Amino acid sequence: MTYCVGLRLDRGIIFASDTRTNAGFDNIACFRKMHVFEKKGERTIVLLTAGNLAVTQSVISLLNESIAHADEGDGVNMMNVTTLFQAARLVGAALREVHRTDGEALGATAAAFSASFILGGQIKGEKPRLFQIYNEGNFIEATVDTPFFQIGEHKYGKPILDRVAVPEMRMGDAAKLLLISFDSTLRSNLSVGMPIDMLIYRTDTYFVGEQRRIDADDPYFRSLSNGWSEALRHAFANIETYTNGDIDEKAPH
Amino acid sequence: MTYCVGLRLDRGIIFASDTRTNAGFDNIACFRKMHVFEKKGERTIVLLTAGNLAVTQSVISLLNESIAHADEGDGVNMMNVTTLFQAARLVGAALREVHRTDGEALGATAAAFSASFILGGQIKGEKPRLFQIYNEGNFIEATVDTPFFQIGEHKYGKPILDRVAVPEMRMGDAAKLLLISFDSTLRSNLSVGMPIDMLIYRTDTYFVGEQRRIDADDPYFRSLSNGWSEALRHAFANIETYTNGDIDEKAPH
Repeated sequence: MTYCVGLRLDRGIIFASDTRTNAGFDNIACFRKMHVFEKKGERTIVLLTAGNLAVTQSVISLLNESIAHADEGDGVNMMNVTTLFQAARLVGAALREVHRTDGEALGATAAAFSASFILGGQIKGEKPRLFQIYNEGNFIEATVDTPFFQIGEHKYGKPILDRVAVPEMRMGDAAKLLLISFDSTLRSNLSVGMPIDMLIYRTDTYFVGEQRRIDADDPYFRSLSNGWSEALRHAFANIETYTNGDIDEKAPH
Repeated sequence: MTYCVGLRLDRGIIFASDTRTNAGFDNIACFRKMHVFEKKGERTIVLLTAGNLAVTQSVISLLNESIAHADEGDGVNMMNVTTLFQAARLVGAALREVHRTDGEALGATAAAFSASFILGGQIKGEKPRLFQIYNEGNFIEATVDTPFFQIGEHKYGKPILDRVAVPEMRMGDAAKLLLISFDSTLRSNLSVGMPIDMLIYRTDTYFVGEQRRIDADDPYFRSLSNGWSEALRHAFANIETYTNGDIDEKAPH
């Protein structure tokens, strides 16, 4: 299982992804789910992947091959498209090509043969943009109302994003938010696993400001995880108890 | 969509279910998903339902018919079984019968033709017990380690249950916990809808101590919902900001 999230803010875009891939619970491996296409000073494009690893790796390979062979075909690739919208179309097209090539052979197991992506970044001449690309190759773009996208095991970590994420956030708070969202997911689904890859892109910089791998021993993550549990229990204790009819008073115990 | 939860405590069992059923977003209706089989002083059995409404209503009808016709067949029904385990088997058997009867005709849409149940309560001679019954008619029982079951849209409301639910809780705190879990679910999935049915059963009482419908205007629920949002934001603000490399200091904004 996978959990990836991208959050578009006024100050930039922040991305996070887990690194666990499994083929059954006795075969757990760590794969990178965060890919960067960058030309410093001109474009930074980040792609997060979820779903079938054979599919997502094939998509990445196709994208890389069309960069390597830019003199063939139409020559359009992630390093020369002029908008993020075009970049999203390239990812969608690569995904459709993988489905065309491998889909028939996989046949009956097609349900498991799916993938989705978060694509974000900035190309000179545009503001930073963030897209979610579906298994069918179509996609949607983040807006001010919904500034984040999640793929994979997204539900456990969504309530805190719904409540806290706003475009005006500072980057440090956004990083904290994403890590709390991850912490909730990690606690509730064992197949989403540490370490976490986190990447921070700041508006109009055209290079990756920070990219690091956060493992289970990371002092900040450990302190955040414990602090958040403690804060939730404290918050729970401070909500007025349900007392309709003095239910505990009437209880025999 | 549906969200139901049952939590088994030392002091008793508490149940909650939403009431929304939909057949597409333009056809939303309110149906009871909480059913009680009770003989005061001897048994209180509560059944929560999730899934295809045609299936769950058929299961309830079959269970009720075998009570009405206790002189036919083997005569075993929800009002005379001697253990909750046997009650769970009855529900599973009724579910299998519905699948046998209607399954073939539904054929291709079988995936949507599924249902699941939470069954809990107490029959004289036993402690209170809590079961989750799967679409296949088999089931599992709650233990001290995992004192709660959820069916339907369960993920959004699980993190707070994971962190707070313990068998030693007081009933008033358990009611608060279930309503917070509902609040998270309602915010993140519009197809889970108010009002909420809540039922409190206290150990060794053999009658429903409290059962009420909580609607969106309920003052306690409104205060809890606002208070919880506020508490989460406060808790978030109190967690140390991520500051690796002074990311906001370096930012151009």
